[in-house]
Amino acid sequence: MDNGRTMQRPGGRSARVRTAVHAAALELLETHPWEELSVPLVAEASGVHQATIYRRWGTMSTLLNDVVTEWSTTTASLPTTGSLREDLHFYATAVAKSLEEGNVPLILRAVVMEIRPGEERQVSAAFLERERQLQAMLDEAQERGEPTPTLAELLEMVVAPLYFYALFTKPMPEAEAARLVDRLLDVVADRAPAPAGPSA
Amino acid sequence: MDNGRTMQRPGGRSARVRTAVHAAALELLETHPWEELSVPLVAEASGVHQATIYRRWGTMSTLLNDVVTEWSTTTASLPTTGSLREDLHFYATAVAKSLEEGNVPLILRAVVMEIRPGEERQVSAAFLERERQLQAMLDEAQERGEPTPTLAELLEMVVAPLYFYALFTKPMPEAEAARLVDRLLDVVADRAPAPAGPSA
Repeated sequence: MDNGRTMQRPGGRSARVRTAVHAAALELLETHPWEELSVPLVAEASGVHQATIYRRWGTMSTLLNDVVTEWSTTTASLPTTGSLREDLHFYATAVAKSLEEGNVPLILRAVVMEIRPGEERQVSAAFLERERQLQAMLDEAQERGEPTPTLAELLEMVVAPLYFYALFTKPMPEAEAARLVDRLLDVVADRAPAPAGPSA
Repeated sequence: MDNGRTMQRPGGRSARVRTAVHAAALELLETHPWEELSVPLVAEASGVHQATIYRRWGTMSTLLNDVVTEWSTTTASLPTTGSLREDLHFYATAVAKSLEEGNVPLILRAVVMEIRPGEERQVSAAFLERERQLQAMLDEAQERGEPTPTLAELLEMVVAPLYFYALFTKPMPEAEAARLVDRLLDVVADRAPAPAGPSA
C-alpha cells in the first residue's frame, strides 16, 4: 500500500488505469450506497481487471481513500494572489462550494471505511498533503510581512466549521465562507504588532 | 418514528426495552464493523424480539441514530456554574474527553448511515437537542450580563474544531479544549461594549 503518495505521471498505462478506476468508483458512489461498492463492481464499470485493482489498491477501502486524496487535493486548488486574505477567501469559498456539491458523502464514506473497532485512526494522505499546501500559503504570507495565523488556527477557525456544518447540519453557503476568514484574520491582527510596512 | 423526541420515563417496559437494545447495540459496535450490525444480531444480544425492534425503530439506521441521540445528550452534560467561561470550559473538556474515549466511530457510523446518494441530509434529533441546551446556556449568561457569543460562534469556534480533529486527525487532548473557549470569549470581548456591572 502506498497510501496515495505515489502520484503517477499522466500518460502511462498506470495513470490510465488509475483514471478509469477512479472515474468508475466516483460514478458508482453517486448511484449506490457505499456498502454495495466492491472491487468486482468497480472492475466491471471501469473495464479494468479485478486482479489489477486488487494488486494496486489491495482493498476497496484503500481505493476509496486514494479517490478522496485525488479529489481533495485537486478540487479546491490553492491560489496565490499576493494577499493572504484574498488567498484564504478563495480557498474557503472553494471548499464551501465543493461541500455543497454533494461530495460530503464521499468523504465521509472514505473516512468511515478506514475506521475499525479497536484500531487507531490513521491520518489520511489527503489530509497531510492539504496541510502541506496550506502551510506553504501561510509561509509565503509571512515572508511578505502579513499578519499570519498558524496552521492550527486556520484549520480550527476556517476549515473545521465548513466540514462541521456539512457533516452535521447542512453545508455553509459559499457566500458566507469568507466571514470565517475575516474572523480568523481579526484574531491574528489583534495580537500582531502593527505591521512595520516595507518602507519602515 | 419519533426521531428520539420521546424520552421514556425510566421503569416502564418500554424504557427497559430501549435500555437493553441500546446497550446491545453499543456493545456490538465495539466489536463489530458497523456494516455487520443488523436487527437480528441486536435482537439476539439484547434478548428483545426482532418484531419489537422493527416496530419501534423501523431500521437499524433509526436505531443507531437513537443510540447517538441518547449518547450525545447525556455524555457531556451541561453545567451551570454561574460563569459562562467556566460552563464552556467544562462543556468543551467533556466533549474532548468523550471524543478521546472512542465514541467517534459510533457517531460517524450513525451519521453516515443516514446518508444515501441523492437524498438530502437530515439534521439529527441529537444535534437539535444539543443546540437547544447550548442556547439555554448562552441565554442565561446573557441574562447575567456577561459578553455572550452567538450559538453559531460557539459551534464554529469550539465544537467544530473538536469534531474536526477527532474525525480527520486525532482527538484534541482534553487539556487543550479550554483554549478554544478562551479564544471565542476573546473575540466576543473585543466587540462587546465594556460591561456596565450590576451596580452601574
